[in-house]
Amino acid sequence: MPSYDLLCDKTREISLLGNTAGVLSWDQETHLTNGGVNYRAQQIAWLAGKIHELSTGDDYRSALEAAENEQGDAPQAANLRELRHRFDRATQLPKSLVEKDSESSSLAKAAWADARAKSDFSLFAPHLKTQLDIAREKAELWGYEDEPYDALLCDYERGTKTSDIAAIFDTVGDELASIAMAAVEKSATTPANLLSGCYPIEKQQQLNREVAEDLGFDFNNGRIDTTTHPFCTHLGPGDTRLTTRYLEENFTSSLFGVLHETGHGLYEQGLPKDHHGLPAGEAVSLGIHESQSRLWENHVGRSRAFWKKWLPRAQEIFPKLADTDLDTFLTAINRAEKSYIRVEADESTYDLHILLRFGLERRMLNKEIDVDDIPAAWNDQFQASFGMTPPNDTQGCLQDIHWSMGGLGYFPTYTLGNFNAAQLHHHALQDQTIASACERADYQPLLAWMRQKIHTKGSSHFPQELMMAATGETTNPQFHLDHLKRRFL
Amino acid sequence: MPSYDLLCDKTREISLLGNTAGVLSWDQETHLTNGGVNYRAQQIAWLAGKIHELSTGDDYRSALEAAENEQGDAPQAANLRELRHRFDRATQLPKSLVEKDSESSSLAKAAWADARAKSDFSLFAPHLKTQLDIAREKAELWGYEDEPYDALLCDYERGTKTSDIAAIFDTVGDELASIAMAAVEKSATTPANLLSGCYPIEKQQQLNREVAEDLGFDFNNGRIDTTTHPFCTHLGPGDTRLTTRYLEENFTSSLFGVLHETGHGLYEQGLPKDHHGLPAGEAVSLGIHESQSRLWENHVGRSRAFWKKWLPRAQEIFPKLADTDLDTFLTAINRAEKSYIRVEADESTYDLHILLRFGLERRMLNKEIDVDDIPAAWNDQFQASFGMTPPNDTQGCLQDIHWSMGGLGYFPTYTLGNFNAAQLHHHALQDQTIASACERADYQPLLAWMRQKIHTKGSSHFPQELMMAATGETTNPQFHLDHLKRRFL
Repeated sequence: MPSYDLLCDKTREISLLGNTAGVLSWDQETHLTNGGVNYRAQQIAWLAGKIHELSTGDDYRSALEAAENEQGDAPQAANLRELRHRFDRATQLPKSLVEKDSESSSLAKAAWADARAKSDFSLFAPHLKTQLDIAREKAELWGYEDEPYDALLCDYERGTKTSDIAAIFDTVGDELASIAMAAVEKSATTPANLLSGCYPIEKQQQLNREVAEDLGFDFNNGRIDTTTHPFCTHLGPGDTRLTTRYLEENFTSSLFGVLHETGHGLYEQGLPKDHHGLPAGEAVSLGIHESQSRLWENHVGRSRAFWKKWLPRAQEIFPKLADTDLDTFLTAINRAEKSYIRVEADESTYDLHILLRFGLERRMLNKEIDVDDIPAAWNDQFQASFGMTPPNDTQGCLQDIHWSMGGLGYFPTYTLGNFNAAQLHHHALQDQTIASACERADYQPLLAWMRQKIHTKGSSHFPQELMMAATGETTNPQFHLDHLKRRFL
Repeated sequence: MPSYDLLCDKTREISLLGNTAGVLSWDQETHLTNGGVNYRAQQIAWLAGKIHELSTGDDYRSALEAAENEQGDAPQAANLRELRHRFDRATQLPKSLVEKDSESSSLAKAAWADARAKSDFSLFAPHLKTQLDIAREKAELWGYEDEPYDALLCDYERGTKTSDIAAIFDTVGDELASIAMAAVEKSATTPANLLSGCYPIEKQQQLNREVAEDLGFDFNNGRIDTTTHPFCTHLGPGDTRLTTRYLEENFTSSLFGVLHETGHGLYEQGLPKDHHGLPAGEAVSLGIHESQSRLWENHVGRSRAFWKKWLPRAQEIFPKLADTDLDTFLTAINRAEKSYIRVEADESTYDLHILLRFGLERRMLNKEIDVDDIPAAWNDQFQASFGMTPPNDTQGCLQDIHWSMGGLGYFPTYTLGNFNAAQLHHHALQDQTIASACERADYQPLLAWMRQKIHTKGSSHFPQELMMAATGETTNPQFHLDHLKRRFL
């Protein structure tokens, strides 16, 4: 057997175990009762240990080295590049640090939940300090060019530098804020509860499924279930699962959740199956993943053309909507409002939340700000962006789980995703066939474009290379700004 | 670390992997879409291979031998006895035979499904011959005292000999048949569809849950889901899952399914948690497991006292039942009828189906009958027992999946379970506190008795030792005959 094939087998075995842990986690989110939680943690830990053993051991090292000495085609070269990168990253961390990281994250998550419930940042502060120490230690071991943030960002956005993101965010910060505030002002006369009513959950499920199917989600190879926090998970070839949550009083909550997760799911279902379990068969980055979810949620799902088709169907399913005309409906679903909470933010204000977080975590990692000063810095920045100050830390710097999980470097990918979505959408619509199909709410040509330019590429290229190949330039925020202006102003 | 503790750790690791495969299988039965089936099979095969490697390797052998040289308490001795037994059985089979067995079973299952659909036994016959060859080969490698059937039965009913079962079945066969035929005769005037109506599935689920909870099923450590074939599976401490199926036209189908599986589930939830993953923490045999399911399904769930309490509640939930009085209801749920299909058989005729199968599979293994003669022999025996002949093999010798799966030796445990259920129930009710509580449909004292005599014992004793300790004698079919006469005649 050629060495490269042997390496692929070993990599796929590791991936199979990762997907097995995925099934256990999915089951935990959707079905597991309290009594089973401890044992489930043991099962997942066993798999994590086995994955670590297989992916950092001498066997794997030898297989990798042997494969690197063979000639191969482009996907082979891409797989080798990524597998070497992952192996080096995994083996650069001593076992003691990996264990300390895992244990500290568990403790920090519990402390964060407690601190958030009590709105007492001091309960979380020592844990955040530990998380930062560990993150810096990892960054030093992995190495970086400019600043430790680079080494962490690399987990989510291969080949992208912190300074590149900072440069983009810096150029657009003011304009984003002024668009957001103008959007909020314009929405002031739109009541918040315009669509409130009683929408039975089974009927919401019916509509959500019809929409997801129409957009191209393949229910022979996936499903939709119910959880508290919506997510999309890929449990193997042919098994992509979305989840959403339901509010009986407003069907758009579950529907936009499904549209967002359908975007993630379409990406997963469009990855090349023959490379499953290898980098060339995997999603490339969070910023690209989020571009797909935001594309279908916002650019498609909140558009006039989409609702011109789907409002009549929604009216059949929900008699409450009978008297709602298309303009009123669009005003309701595109209402801008200032919110303390990121996950409740509308499209126009969302990125302000991200810019704030990115700035703070970068300064924390660079030791330019002390953990104890985070609440004050958060509130100052929030006041500067939104013209209001969170009434407490629960609605301020304690709202997100990310820092407690050690997920430093994750936040900017949300806004990168928004920028990429607008840019990809704009470029796809330069094709008149795609544009006119979208006008008829036929999104198959748009999906085909995304399949060709993004999905089928897997991780064969860095995310910014994908953007360049698809649109002729790297991430450019102008398309997002233009989109927001068109939609809100 | 003492050698015994090391052995327990190794055994619990194997059990953890078995439970992980259990979650994957449960998910496959309840959620997995078609596209995910092949990959899921690969995941389960990986776990099976790892389990085989860990449980038959030199490491395990050394740990077992070292532990056997230590002194320990009674549960330790019981665990060592069972672990030695399992290790010997697993290592007595060469890898080639294990692989052949697994592959042949897959092929045989597919051929059986095809043969059953076409009612063409000749499509299944060659596979059944192979399954028999493999079963005999395994029996020879494992060894047996009297006949190969003993070696197979051992997987399901430790310490019980085929000739013991045959002796019991032989004594009661005629009386069982005459009770069954008299019961059928008596039910002739009861219409089959007495309770037919429209029972919304959510309302059935509501009632089922209330009943299972009232009997003692702990929903913090378990749940009920929906499948085509009802089952109970134990996925770890604190995670016992029942499934049932729903007929909108008759709520008793799902309810008796839930009662049956609740019996299995109560047993699993009552096993000693400190021995989880070890024999002393596991169910002892199929004949004991089935005694628990049949106890709650039939002795409790089809009794007058039970429905005196629950019919009024069912009438609240299902208006259709408003005019059904208790006597009519009991007549309807205890209606006897001759059926070609085992799984549709009522309590009075059920065992006749089992006696037929046991006799045939024993003769097959002993080469006293040729596979090609099975359809004729089945039909002859069916005519002798029921006074009617199956119109085709789909409704005759092709109806059950067991032989295709290599599950030879499994069938008699169903009837053993019925006998054990009646015997345990009779003895528990000798305690007046238990008897009078049951009269009030308070089943907690009955459950406490089962917990004490059966559940908490795990596999520390052989099943017949458990029966002896609980009732003063080994399995005695008289209690079952008496019960059937009281209920049906």
